[in-house]
Amino acid sequence: MGKGGMSIDDHGDGKGVEQKENMAAWLIGINTLKIQPFNLPTLGPHDARVRMKAVGICGSDVHYLKTMRCADFIVKEPMVIGHECAGIIEEVGSEVKNLVAGDRVAIEPGISCWRCEQCKLGRYNLCTDMKFFATPPVHGSLANQIVHPADLCYKLPENVSLEEGAMCEPLSVGVYACRRANVGPETNVLIMGAGPIGLVSILAARAFGAPRIVITDVDNHRLSVAKSLGADDIVKVSTNIQNVSQEVMQIRKAMGAGVDVSFDCVGFDKTLSTALSATQPGGKVCLVGMGHSEMTIPLTAAAAREVDVIGVFRYRNTWPLCIEFLRSGKIDIKPLITHRFGFSQKEVEEAFETSARGGNAIKVMFNL
Amino acid sequence: MGKGGMSIDDHGDGKGVEQKENMAAWLIGINTLKIQPFNLPTLGPHDARVRMKAVGICGSDVHYLKTMRCADFIVKEPMVIGHECAGIIEEVGSEVKNLVAGDRVAIEPGISCWRCEQCKLGRYNLCTDMKFFATPPVHGSLANQIVHPADLCYKLPENVSLEEGAMCEPLSVGVYACRRANVGPETNVLIMGAGPIGLVSILAARAFGAPRIVITDVDNHRLSVAKSLGADDIVKVSTNIQNVSQEVMQIRKAMGAGVDVSFDCVGFDKTLSTALSATQPGGKVCLVGMGHSEMTIPLTAAAAREVDVIGVFRYRNTWPLCIEFLRSGKIDIKPLITHRFGFSQKEVEEAFETSARGGNAIKVMFNL
Amino acid sequence: MGKGGMSIDDHGDGKGVEQKENMAAWLIGINTLKIQPFNLPTLGPHDARVRMKAVGICGSDVHYLKTMRCADFIVKEPMVIGHECAGIIEEVGSEVKNLVAGDRVAIEPGISCWRCEQCKLGRYNLCTDMKFFATPPVHGSLANQIVHPADLCYKLPENVSLEEGAMCEPLSVGVYACRRANVGPETNVLIMGAGPIGLVSILAARAFGAPRIVITDVDNHRLSVAKSLGADDIVKVSTNIQNVSQEVMQIRKAMGAGVDVSFDCVGFDKTLSTALSATQPGGKVCLVGMGHSEMTIPLTAAAAREVDVIGVFRYRNTWPLCIEFLRSGKIDIKPLITHRFGFSQKEVEEAFETSARGGNAIKVMFNL
Amino acid sequence: MGKGGMSIDDHGDGKGVEQKENMAAWLIGINTLKIQPFNLPTLGPHDARVRMKAVGICGSDVHYLKTMRCADFIVKEPMVIGHECAGIIEEVGSEVKNLVAGDRVAIEPGISCWRCEQCKLGRYNLCTDMKFFATPPVHGSLANQIVHPADLCYKLPENVSLEEGAMCEPLSVGVYACRRANVGPETNVLIMGAGPIGLVSILAARAFGAPRIVITDVDNHRLSVAKSLGADDIVKVSTNIQNVSQEVMQIRKAMGAGVDVSFDCVGFDKTLSTALSATQPGGKVCLVGMGHSEMTIPLTAAAAREVDVIGVFRYRNTWPLCIEFLRSGKIDIKPLITHRFGFSQKEVEEAFETSARGGNAIKVMFNL
Repeated sequence: MGKGGMSIDDHGDGKGVEQKENMAAWLIGINTLKIQPFNLPTLGPHDARVRMKAVGICGSDVHYLKTMRCADFIVKEPMVIGHECAGIIEEVGSEVKNLVAGDRVAIEPGISCWRCEQCKLGRYNLCTDMKFFATPPVHGSLANQIVHPADLCYKLPENVSLEEGAMCEPLSVGVYACRRANVGPETNVLIMGAGPIGLVSILAARAFGAPRIVITDVDNHRLSVAKSLGADDIVKVSTNIQNVSQEVMQIRKAMGAGVDVSFDCVGFDKTLSTALSATQPGGKVCLVGMGHSEMTIPLTAAAAREVDVIGVFRYRNTWPLCIEFLRSGKIDIKPLITHRFGFSQKEVEEAFETSARGGNAIKVMFNL
Repeated sequence: MGKGGMSIDDHGDGKGVEQKENMAAWLIGINTLKIQPFNLPTLGPHDARVRMKAVGICGSDVHYLKTMRCADFIVKEPMVIGHECAGIIEEVGSEVKNLVAGDRVAIEPGISCWRCEQCKLGRYNLCTDMKFFATPPVHGSLANQIVHPADLCYKLPENVSLEEGAMCEPLSVGVYACRRANVGPETNVLIMGAGPIGLVSILAARAFGAPRIVITDVDNHRLSVAKSLGADDIVKVSTNIQNVSQEVMQIRKAMGAGVDVSFDCVGFDKTLSTALSATQPGGKVCLVGMGHSEMTIPLTAAAAREVDVIGVFRYRNTWPLCIEFLRSGKIDIKPLITHRFGFSQKEVEEAFETSARGGNAIKVMFNL
Repeated sequence: MGKGGMSIDDHGDGKGVEQKENMAAWLIGINTLKIQPFNLPTLGPHDARVRMKAVGICGSDVHYLKTMRCADFIVKEPMVIGHECAGIIEEVGSEVKNLVAGDRVAIEPGISCWRCEQCKLGRYNLCTDMKFFATPPVHGSLANQIVHPADLCYKLPENVSLEEGAMCEPLSVGVYACRRANVGPETNVLIMGAGPIGLVSILAARAFGAPRIVITDVDNHRLSVAKSLGADDIVKVSTNIQNVSQEVMQIRKAMGAGVDVSFDCVGFDKTLSTALSATQPGGKVCLVGMGHSEMTIPLTAAAAREVDVIGVFRYRNTWPLCIEFLRSGKIDIKPLITHRFGFSQKEVEEAFETSARGGNAIKVMFNL
Repeated sequence: MGKGGMSIDDHGDGKGVEQKENMAAWLIGINTLKIQPFNLPTLGPHDARVRMKAVGICGSDVHYLKTMRCADFIVKEPMVIGHECAGIIEEVGSEVKNLVAGDRVAIEPGISCWRCEQCKLGRYNLCTDMKFFATPPVHGSLANQIVHPADLCYKLPENVSLEEGAMCEPLSVGVYACRRANVGPETNVLIMGAGPIGLVSILAARAFGAPRIVITDVDNHRLSVAKSLGADDIVKVSTNIQNVSQEVMQIRKAMGAGVDVSFDCVGFDKTLSTALSATQPGGKVCLVGMGHSEMTIPLTAAAAREVDVIGVFRYRNTWPLCIEFLRSGKIDIKPLITHRFGFSQKEVEEAFETSARGGNAIKVMFNL
């Protein structure tokens, strides 16, 4: 454990039932995670207490670990990390009807207020008072047990594993992007970037019926993984912005048809410029995941072709659909899980190092 | 007439009926317009022959006159200019049922192919084979008479003048932008830029029911015109991009509520950055009119608030609605017409100079 | 008080703070309303305690009074009646930020669960666990004070009275119908029936920009009221189903254009048949309010013109818009309030009799 | 061949190039089809001349043969029958760029005017001046050759046969219904009726991603065909309207989830009542194909659950998608073709008898 970490001696929200045995991975300082006790809050009438069984590491988790911040969010006090998770119900509150102890559940990590305008309009992912796992100051879910609203715990069918349940979180990003961009059986899809978000976008676009999916990346290994996951064609691209025109021609040739929807899963000037130029009149470009804050892009020409630019923030209403895709076999998410670790101090450190290192690691998963 | 203009001796499409008396304003070279004979094509069974009575000058007309080009379109042969027009039916083809000679009509300038995918999908403004007045190599409508498809000639009610009819074209830009951005009685609208497009956007947004409209510009006179046309509040802005944050605060204060839809009617980095930052989560920014080809903008933060960027190209299906707005009085377009000219060589030149000079000229109109 | 009423001695939910002075109008049996004490529940952290100032009588209230039931809902225990209301904040819970004591508020009567699929999808009016004022077994709001979630209490601007605030409830029916049917400045609207629902539909359709509104009824007085409220034309119809074809011709003539959206605010075979036949291809027929349970209608021919039939249930997200319509003067709802009563036993009885009698009573309002 | 047929001696539109060898199947009177010469019109610049190779028989063709009418359309003069077809390009007009002689094409049968409001809005199937194969007075396509707009001739990929190309027409009905009802991977679909329309609806709903499809019919054989084509479950129903409630329970059990979209492919009171009752709040019922003109149905209760009733008329923009579904193998339409006939007088008569008889005939196809 690194030096200079903040003390967590007095943390945990205190009001809860003390459960000595409940341990969690606390982010205490830059590059410093420590497994320490985590007091659970009292179980409310609509809550569930869940024993975590599978928790994945997300790029944002790594980012918090390395910098104690992500976008505008800053970790000011020790915080339990982790938000891609699934587990087994231990106990439910008095008003919970749809779950019982022993149920295996995938967990949606964000608790929205349901009182603000965005929530009431059905855009709860834009809630102005969202409480989201491991987004400071809210604790995450890399813990033996957590307490969470039962309506955010989705029962898994028998043929969907807990690890697959945890993968509903990253998969939700692709699924929600497809829904926002209205991908369907008439939508040819271009994906910029074959990282984890690009890969789940392939799987989601295919499940939504996209007839043709082309993906680009600078890395051959990532492209080969993308191909094996179902991309119809791959285009190796450069980081040189001078090459946009030529690469757009390559993309169009690979697509063999117009590009209806492009997902930029990288967020650089180069990738977005390519997506804007490659998309045909009346199409959409969707920004998935965070990119550079300022971007220099040929937006005017795209707008004059009525290519709309669609933003997405996290997801909403995606768990039931993700679970259905996994249950039916329309999506096989298992190949994305490349590494597994247990929940000891040493393994937690190794797991985050593995995820941070990248290389052939796509998704690193804890088995608790 | 300027020197070096191309000869038009052999032009006109030749196949038509010669009508010696039909004169038109030909763009012959940079800064060179000349009134010369214009042969009309044969009247087809679904066509109408229309005597032009009112033709407005658009910024793109001026741009063609000064540079012989606009965006990617280049004037390579002499071309009749003008596309904002209304007139009186002289003759209709054998299959035309809804019009008779003497009818006063406003004219939609673009003839789409109705065979391409975009046309069939109802997005005929994106037609890949569009023939549009005064977009080379297609002739425009600043002429005594033109021949045009009768279904693009919309009969005017008694209480709508021919000049107002000609104004349906610029008004269509604002109306179509409002429709694409789904402006309605729950949509607070921000408009960047109080030029002609910004002004028609005020009128259109109000007619679509926008409860609150705030407009920005760098010019006090333009802002005062905007106010007189119905903007609820005005914000004077600078050209300094450092001021975006502060101006966004001013805009929000002027709005007194969240900005749901922003129309950028300027298309500079500064205006689009302001629009993106000022618009609230789940809102839309609509690019109206052409701007800089490359723009450096804070798109990522806007996308993360699910602020979508909507492009518009010209318009579709707007004439009936524009005419209804004028008929009902929901829109009074007349104050935009600031200057009028006759159709002589000298007046044509003066009119274009007036329009090019800007100043207090909003719309310069020919009465033929 | 009628005989055979149930005893309410032991009612009130008991858990609340006893406030001897809080009285409410209890529905105790058929035709039996009695003003009796009503214990308020404890104020939760997100609740507001509101002193009622204006409560309107709805047709459903009268129906409950006469039959102790409405649709599938049956009054099995004494129930406080009333759900169209506005009042003044007396106290707010610890977490309420947007309201303070003294604020004048209009009240949305339904508390949805925000845990079911419908709520999460943004269709909270279809919540499977809705708690709605005066829908058994939930108490209503004809009382001196009530406790209600603060986010369902909408602050009124200075120029909107408490009575107008109470009218937001019936107005919401028309506003929501217009939103579901996508009424806008291109939508010619036909309304079947000039009762209270038909009248608020006129006001709402006009505020949404409908260029032309035609209304039908069997009663001359109601039609004249409709005309005075802004209908462009009226068509007196019969109850004889043989007359549908002829009346459709009259309606079309009165409209002077195609009917884009029809609101059936009656719900009889005759009215719906007329609406289906009168609506042009691609249009919509919207059923507003409850009608006959079985209807014999020419649905096939309408479907073959792609006339869709849209159902509406109550409303969602309408209060802010209703208040804005009232604030801006786009809607003047005051003419609908025809009778006013105080909150004594005698006046309550008289008020309900007045409402039940119909005649020239449109909205009967209590001033508490 | 029946007696009393009208003479066709003087028919054919006369203006065309006489091609003695071009024969067509003329509907001359009730139960009277005769193969006789059919003069082709002159090939226009945007037209194609197509040698027919596969033509299917539709229920409406049989209806015309038996009654000389269908809905409001009456056959008053001899008319060439047939509209489900595919063939090989013989010649194209001077302006046709995307097709050459020898191309194999599926043919969309309706020529819309592109001048009316419906066409311009993109709803060309609702065109008020549609010219549709074998809808009087327009000739059909059961002929050696036809002339048709080239943009309605869609080139077939190598792996899609001409018979499959002809099947794009009935398949379009199901595809368009799915598109109008917005069927996707979150839509559980109920289909009433396992006739040809019900069967193509199964195929289409599956291709649009419907996770669960349940179909009902009164006939065991049809249900077993439906099962073999991919329905997840089948429910045998009766014609007794008293059984609706009980059958709705069976349907819900078979679905194992809520019904989001119901397609009524029968159009009887019983089937529509069942569909309305079975569909969950916020769902849709879509009327596919023509049913009884007057229907007695429990519409009010459905409307109060916001179950919308969607009509469909023919289809639009479906050929490219149908061809893609066939090319990719997402749909295998071949099992629907149960009978094949040549193009002799005798075989034409037999083919229509076979189709009319029903039994195990689903689609009867001519090979020309």
